[in-house]
Amino acid sequence: MTTIEAPRSAEQTDPKKTGIIDSDVHPNFVNGIRDLTPYMTETWRNRLGVSGDDWAKGMAAAQFTLPLDYLYINAAGAYREDAARPGMPPATDPDFTAQHLLDKHGIYRAVLLAGQCLGIGAMPDGMVAATIASAYNEWMCERWLQNDVRWRGALVVAPQDPEAAVAEIDRVAKRDGIVAVFMPLGEILMGEKHYWPIYEACARHELPLIVHPSGCENVFAKAPRMAGTPTFYLEWHTALGQIHQSNTLSMICHGVFEKFPKLKYIIAEGGFLWALEVMWKLDRDWKGLRNEVPWLTRPPSEYLLDHIRFTTQPFIEPHDPRHVGPLMEMLHADRTLMFSSDYPHWDFDNPQRSLQAVSKELRQKILVDTPRAVYGDRLD
Amino acid sequence: MTTIEAPRSAEQTDPKKTGIIDSDVHPNFVNGIRDLTPYMTETWRNRLGVSGDDWAKGMAAAQFTLPLDYLYINAAGAYREDAARPGMPPATDPDFTAQHLLDKHGIYRAVLLAGQCLGIGAMPDGMVAATIASAYNEWMCERWLQNDVRWRGALVVAPQDPEAAVAEIDRVAKRDGIVAVFMPLGEILMGEKHYWPIYEACARHELPLIVHPSGCENVFAKAPRMAGTPTFYLEWHTALGQIHQSNTLSMICHGVFEKFPKLKYIIAEGGFLWALEVMWKLDRDWKGLRNEVPWLTRPPSEYLLDHIRFTTQPFIEPHDPRHVGPLMEMLHADRTLMFSSDYPHWDFDNPQRSLQAVSKELRQKILVDTPRAVYGDRLD
Repeated sequence: MTTIEAPRSAEQTDPKKTGIIDSDVHPNFVNGIRDLTPYMTETWRNRLGVSGDDWAKGMAAAQFTLPLDYLYINAAGAYREDAARPGMPPATDPDFTAQHLLDKHGIYRAVLLAGQCLGIGAMPDGMVAATIASAYNEWMCERWLQNDVRWRGALVVAPQDPEAAVAEIDRVAKRDGIVAVFMPLGEILMGEKHYWPIYEACARHELPLIVHPSGCENVFAKAPRMAGTPTFYLEWHTALGQIHQSNTLSMICHGVFEKFPKLKYIIAEGGFLWALEVMWKLDRDWKGLRNEVPWLTRPPSEYLLDHIRFTTQPFIEPHDPRHVGPLMEMLHADRTLMFSSDYPHWDFDNPQRSLQAVSKELRQKILVDTPRAVYGDRLD
Repeated sequence: MTTIEAPRSAEQTDPKKTGIIDSDVHPNFVNGIRDLTPYMTETWRNRLGVSGDDWAKGMAAAQFTLPLDYLYINAAGAYREDAARPGMPPATDPDFTAQHLLDKHGIYRAVLLAGQCLGIGAMPDGMVAATIASAYNEWMCERWLQNDVRWRGALVVAPQDPEAAVAEIDRVAKRDGIVAVFMPLGEILMGEKHYWPIYEACARHELPLIVHPSGCENVFAKAPRMAGTPTFYLEWHTALGQIHQSNTLSMICHGVFEKFPKLKYIIAEGGFLWALEVMWKLDRDWKGLRNEVPWLTRPPSEYLLDHIRFTTQPFIEPHDPRHVGPLMEMLHADRTLMFSSDYPHWDFDNPQRSLQAVSKELRQKILVDTPRAVYGDRLD
C-alpha cells in the first residue's frame, strides 16, 4: 500500500518544501453565537438578543442560531465523534485540535474556515452578518491564531454588504496569521458587480478569496439555490457542486479575472469534476459567442486554470481506481488541486490515505507546492 | 377605565355563557425536539439524529433545530420574561402556565397551538414533518390535555403530505380535548387541490382548521413568501398578514368552501384589516370576472363571513381609538373575531385590557359566543 510519509520534524526537513498545508479546517464555538459576545459592543449584544444571562432574557438568542443547515438532517452526525475531549463540542479547543489533527497527520499549516459562520450569507440583514463576521475574526485571531503558529486564518466578510466587507478586509488583512478572505455564499451569483469591491480588496491585499458550501443551500430564502429544493440530505450533499459551477461560470463570463488579474479564488469542499464541463463547454461555446462577453481575451478555461483552485476533500472515488489518474490529468490537478481535510466533519480526509490513487509527484503538488504558490510567504 | 370583569367562579356563572375562550396559546419544549423522542420509534430517533446522549453523538441534532424564525432577531425577546418559573423556558410547565394565564385572567378554555412546531411546513422532507407532528400530538395529549381540563388542543399535521395528514387527523381527532386541526404554513397556496384531502378530513370530523404565522415566512426556501424578503424583524412582523391575505384569496377563488361547506377556517395572529380589502375588492371584481371561477355561487365575501374567523391578537390600535368601532362594524366583528392572548409571546394581549375600545356586547361575542359557535361542544 502506498502511503505518504509525514515529515518527521521541522528540523529534519525544510517545511517550505515538504510541510503539508490543509486548506479546510473548521473551528467551532462552544455556545454558538454567545462565544462572540466579548467581541461586540453592548448595543450589538442587545440587538442580537445575547446580552442577558438567564434563560428568559435570552429567549431571542435561544431562538436565533447562526444559519447553517437546519432542515437537512445528517443522521450520521455532522462531526467526527473523536474530534473533541469527552463532553465537548468538536474542534472547540485549539490545543486538542492541534494534537488530534496537526500532530497526528504531520500537517505544517492549516487554514481555519469560518466554523459556524459558514452560512451568514443567508441572513436578511447585512449589518448583522457584518457584525458577526467582525466578531468572529477577533475570536479567531485571539483564540486560535495566537495559540499555535500552525493555525492560519481566513478572515470572514459579509457578502450582503461589500462596503462593510472591504472595511473589514482593510481592518484585519495585515494581522499575523491571516492568509485568505472567506466569503460565505449568498443569493447573488458571484460574477455580479455587487461583489467587485470585495474582489478589488482581496487583490490589493494579495489575499486569495475562499468559498465553501454554506450548509444553507436551498434552505434559506436568501441563500443560493440548486435547480430545485432536494428532499434528502443525501441528494442535497451530492449536488452541492452545482452552486460552485454556477458561480464559476458567472465569474468567468462577467470578466472578473480580466478586471482583477491578481485575484485568486479557492473553492473549498465544492468538488471539481463539474469544472471539466465548465472548461470544455465554455471554450467550445465561446468560439461562437464571444461577442456576448467581449471583455474575455482568452479561452475561458485559461481563467479557470490561472485563477481558480479546488480543495481535495471529498476526493473523487471512481468505481475503478485506475480512472483517477486520467481525471487528474484532465483537470490539470498539478496546478488546480490543494489538499484539505475538512476536519472535524464526518467525511474527513486523511492526508496519508485520501490521495493514495495519485502519483507521488502529484501528491507533492497537492499537499505542498500548489497551496504554497497560492498563500505565499504568509504561511511562514 | 372600562375593564371586563372576569367570571368569579364556575359555580357563580354558567361558563357556557361567560367563560372566556383563548384561541392562541403556545406550549413550549424544554429541550427542543428532544422532548419528543419518547413518542418516536428508535428508527426515527436515529433518522433525526436524536438517539444519543453525549454531545458528539448528538451533533446531527445539535445542528438540527425545529424550523422557526432563525434569521429575524427579536431583540426584545420573543417571550414574556415572567411566563415561567425562574430558569425555565416559558410555557413549558402546564401547572405554572395554568396559574399564570388561566387563573389570573379568568380564562375558561385555551387552545394550544403547536409551540415550536409552527414552522415544520418549511421542512423539505414531509415524512420528517409528519413524524414530528405525530410525536407532538402525543406529547400535547399526555403532558397538557390530560393535566388540566381547561387546556384544549389543536392536533398538528404536516402540510407537505396530505395523505399522512389525513391519517393523523383520523388517528387523533376523537381524543379528549382535541378541538381543532392546526396546519403549519407551506409554500403552496391554500386553495390548491394539494390540501383538499386535509379539508375533507377536517369537515368530516367537524374540526375547524387553524393556521398561524410560522416564524418561517421568507426565511426558508419551502416556506411562504411575501413580495420580497424583508431585512428587519420589524418590517417582517408588520407584513405577516400578506400571506394570510393570499391564502384567503386562494381558498375562496378555488372554491374550497363550495366544495367543503362544513369547513371552518381560523386565522390566528394573522391580523384582519387586510380582510376588508379582500371582501370589497373581490366582490367588486367578481361581478365582472365570475366566469373565471364559475364554481362560486355567491359574492366572495360571503364565504369569508361564513367560514373564516380571525383571532384578535395583536389587536388593532388606530391613532384615534374612536375608529375602532367603525372598523369592527366593517369587519362584521360580531361574527368574525375570536379572542386570543398569544401567551407566552412578547406581544401578549390581556382579555381584560386589550378589548377596551369595543362595546360590552361585542366583547361578549369575541370572548365567548363566537369561539363557542366555532368549537362547539368539544369545549365542555
